[in-house]
Amino acid sequence: MRAPEKRPDNRNRLYTSCEDFSWKGVQVEKYKSGGDDWSGIVRQVLIGGRGESAKFHLRYFEIEPGGFSSFETHKHEHVVITVRGRGRAKVKRRIMDLKYLDVLYVNPDSPHRLSNPYEEPFGFFCIVNAKRDRPKIINKKPKD
Amino acid sequence: MRAPEKRPDNRNRLYTSCEDFSWKGVQVEKYKSGGDDWSGIVRQVLIGGRGESAKFHLRYFEIEPGGFSSFETHKHEHVVITVRGRGRAKVKRRIMDLKYLDVLYVNPDSPHRLSNPYEEPFGFFCIVNAKRDRPKIINKKPKD
Repeated sequence: MRAPEKRPDNRNRLYTSCEDFSWKGVQVEKYKSGGDDWSGIVRQVLIGGRGESAKFHLRYFEIEPGGFSSFETHKHEHVVITVRGRGRAKVKRRIMDLKYLDVLYVNPDSPHRLSNPYEEPFGFFCIVNAKRDRPKIINKKPKD
Repeated sequence: MRAPEKRPDNRNRLYTSCEDFSWKGVQVEKYKSGGDDWSGIVRQVLIGGRGESAKFHLRYFEIEPGGFSSFETHKHEHVVITVRGRGRAKVKRRIMDLKYLDVLYVNPDSPHRLSNPYEEPFGFFCIVNAKRDRPKIINKKPKD
């Protein structure tokens, strides 16, 4: 196996912000390809998927007003950094409001959902391990 | 060895922003304990060092006007997210300006330095692997 630093794509990169929560050279993608247990989310993968050797990936998610992610659980951790608007996190039974630069750590196996009950877009970075397990959906329809 | 998710400190946590680039329950520390190859930097460790099982750590650094980090190299990667003011990165021989939400990936073994030639504080998140090698200082005095 080739050493990580020798991968041709593992090069230094600057992703310039376009000042509208998008980045030059980074695609805006769907949150998930299917399912009706989530609504109104897009994501951008900033670090991960381009040959980077780091043990983590960095993504930016944006939830539109009224939108929400799946209520799901997995063995890998989440670190969330709020950078746009405000939002809400449910982790197990605890519900938390997230505002600018609040940082949330979700530990392994805690069911969680992020949602936007506000009137402006809710945007956040989410950092995860590069190697991670598949999420399990807890319930198919939103309840909070 | 105890499974990561069973560590008593590996719990869900919300770090509330105090709205001045500090977080409740997070200490402001020196960038390094010694050396004269850097100046005017402090750091806050948000994720890492409290029993978290994630394969990465999240820190926030702030460089005062005129300050700079060591020009150093190591095998681990850096991901930098600019959130306060503006700054500059030197990676190998390339010099880049960093502004709000610009994201920089520094690959293994690239000598690098961050600096603040501007008049406002330059603050950024820096994500690194949890397990990482010690930096090697390239030169003892700043040159750029």
